[in-house]
Amino acid sequence: MIILNKGITAPKGFKAAGIACGIKAKKKDLSLIVSDVPCHTAAAFTTNKVKAAPVQYNEALYEKEQKIRCILTNSGNANACTGEQGKTDAYAMAQKTAESLGLSAEEIMINSTGVIGVPLPMEKVLLGINEITKQIGDDEISAANAAEGIMTTDTFAKTVCVEVIIDTKPVRIAAIAKGSGMIHPNMATMLSFITTDVNIDAALFRSLMSETVKDSYNMLSVDGDTSTNDTVIALANGLAGNEMLQLESAEFPIFEKAFQFVNQHVAKLIAKDGEGATKFLNVKVYEAKTKEDARALALSVIKSSLVKTAFFGEDANWGRVLCAMGYAGADFDPDKVVLTFESEKGSITLYEKGVPIAFDEAKALEILKEKEIVIHIRLGEGPYSAESFGCDLSYEYVKINGEYRS
Amino acid sequence: MIILNKGITAPKGFKAAGIACGIKAKKKDLSLIVSDVPCHTAAAFTTNKVKAAPVQYNEALYEKEQKIRCILTNSGNANACTGEQGKTDAYAMAQKTAESLGLSAEEIMINSTGVIGVPLPMEKVLLGINEITKQIGDDEISAANAAEGIMTTDTFAKTVCVEVIIDTKPVRIAAIAKGSGMIHPNMATMLSFITTDVNIDAALFRSLMSETVKDSYNMLSVDGDTSTNDTVIALANGLAGNEMLQLESAEFPIFEKAFQFVNQHVAKLIAKDGEGATKFLNVKVYEAKTKEDARALALSVIKSSLVKTAFFGEDANWGRVLCAMGYAGADFDPDKVVLTFESEKGSITLYEKGVPIAFDEAKALEILKEKEIVIHIRLGEGPYSAESFGCDLSYEYVKINGEYRS
Repeated sequence: MIILNKGITAPKGFKAAGIACGIKAKKKDLSLIVSDVPCHTAAAFTTNKVKAAPVQYNEALYEKEQKIRCILTNSGNANACTGEQGKTDAYAMAQKTAESLGLSAEEIMINSTGVIGVPLPMEKVLLGINEITKQIGDDEISAANAAEGIMTTDTFAKTVCVEVIIDTKPVRIAAIAKGSGMIHPNMATMLSFITTDVNIDAALFRSLMSETVKDSYNMLSVDGDTSTNDTVIALANGLAGNEMLQLESAEFPIFEKAFQFVNQHVAKLIAKDGEGATKFLNVKVYEAKTKEDARALALSVIKSSLVKTAFFGEDANWGRVLCAMGYAGADFDPDKVVLTFESEKGSITLYEKGVPIAFDEAKALEILKEKEIVIHIRLGEGPYSAESFGCDLSYEYVKINGEYRS
Repeated sequence: MIILNKGITAPKGFKAAGIACGIKAKKKDLSLIVSDVPCHTAAAFTTNKVKAAPVQYNEALYEKEQKIRCILTNSGNANACTGEQGKTDAYAMAQKTAESLGLSAEEIMINSTGVIGVPLPMEKVLLGINEITKQIGDDEISAANAAEGIMTTDTFAKTVCVEVIIDTKPVRIAAIAKGSGMIHPNMATMLSFITTDVNIDAALFRSLMSETVKDSYNMLSVDGDTSTNDTVIALANGLAGNEMLQLESAEFPIFEKAFQFVNQHVAKLIAKDGEGATKFLNVKVYEAKTKEDARALALSVIKSSLVKTAFFGEDANWGRVLCAMGYAGADFDPDKVVLTFESEKGSITLYEKGVPIAFDEAKALEILKEKEIVIHIRLGEGPYSAESFGCDLSYEYVKINGEYRS
């Protein structure tokens, strides 16, 4: 697998665009991804009971196993908690995009992210769709514009592209994403869109996505709140020309690994851009009895406000890590745990098999002053591992989320 | 039921004391409650897998249905993650208390709260036990000293006492408690000790406790972290002289209600004293399909960092409340929800049956500026209610928890 410095249009047959249609004061707020041909689609939607109108629209298409050509997204307004009007507006966006591109509304997925409870400014949106559908291109600038058009409070655009060889054919996977921090003036969302030109069995693509989210987006926590709009959509258009990948294909694991890399990479980028975050935290759990135990422990630690504030304070507070493990609902024996903190400056073991280890405070501080910290947790119980991605909890988080309206 | 301005020694046959034995620099750090006669005991212990040594000691006694005479607690050191030494020390504390009072170690429950991973200064503790056992009294000052002796970063002592009449006999229930905020320099704990002179069936007392914690301590969230030491212990010595309460006793509901009141009151006091909290939040869920749904929704909202920061910012952010309900795992229809915020300054409905309601921002701010806010959530699904207790998330929380060691 090689990483390419390219965007969402790098896989064959994908075009994109991003423009400002006036939902936001100045910035880009509309983003479009279009495939030349219909795509197998693999997606995951928020498990929140309160689902935004566009999520409901997409889910209905997804259940019908509709082939998708196009992903249209607006930022600046989440079209959530907007009642019947919201549903009408989401459908109107799909309808307008379809018309402008000579497609059917059933081939379009729609996403919205931004403020909730406010109706979309539909006049601007529809004019915007008219405009953006004329601007699609397969060049890098179009791809970058599409990445920008989905941003809300993100401080950088999130994109990644990889290439693997399958059947001697180059197969590419690219993604754009936006942050999961819950954002002013209300909450926002995590969005991730993946394009690939792989030729893959439709059901296999879907089950690969279901597995992949468990170790990427679902292991990501900025503040523990699942939004009304969280969505991951992957489109596979088959234009790479490889023989169709099946579960038993010798080269399926190559694609599987690359697909997992792309999604995990994007999840890490989102964690790094967590609201008000000063540090990226990566919890690695090893030697768990089950995969579920490993995931539950990694997630419990990354979500703990006490762990997050300790790292913000650069405090080697292993007790809080152990405590968060304790309420994860996973099976382990505290008396077997080995806890190590690591950064570019080295590593330090703080707790080993039931007993705290006397450690050099100066050395610990040197390690914890770094921007990226790995928390290694060895359980001594079994063969399973998992990792989670998150960030610290800072004054800035409270400020961003507490003070917007005052 | 009447509320008495008295402490933990108000029920017949209970004595108490609180002293400084030197674990902390200056403040009281040892607390003792003693009953003249053996007590039926009803308790709840942390569900955290990582349990402090004294919790393990108490649980073993509790499983044996041992009658208890005495609760000894030290603050300033949690005796958690202290390995074999911790277990030896917890037993030594029980042993010393028993010796000093002429009891058996099996009649003593032991609690510790404070810094974790540091061995107890046993010399000071044992001298302290020698001293405190000489100082027990049934006066109000002794009761107040005991309440003070369990405090860590609590800003006020938490105590409550009520009296009900059963069989024409006055029956009293009193409690002392300490905060659940996770506290410097590591985490601390929620402790609550209840004394009552009621005569009650031992099994009924235990099952009443199991039910009561679900609507009191388990509906309380300061930062969502369950500590290694959380403990509730209630002692009933029977000296009120009422006929033994059974489940079918006509007057059992009187005691039940008073017992629930005491525990819920103490849970509210803990929430009010949440670390860095500027506001007390009370979430009330009505019209749920099941009791479990009502509890899950109330708890999900009170735990959300986004909801907590919004209230810190005095922002009428109903969207975050709805979002936190959405991921509670409870069954409800967002299109039936009615959301109202209330304080002493009045109330304001912000969302009704799928649609946001235009509201007066100035009025909302006036309401949210108060120190105690109630969030009313009507579901329109069924007959069940629940409420949760918590506080906002402030800069001060991040400061207390992030900066202690730096």
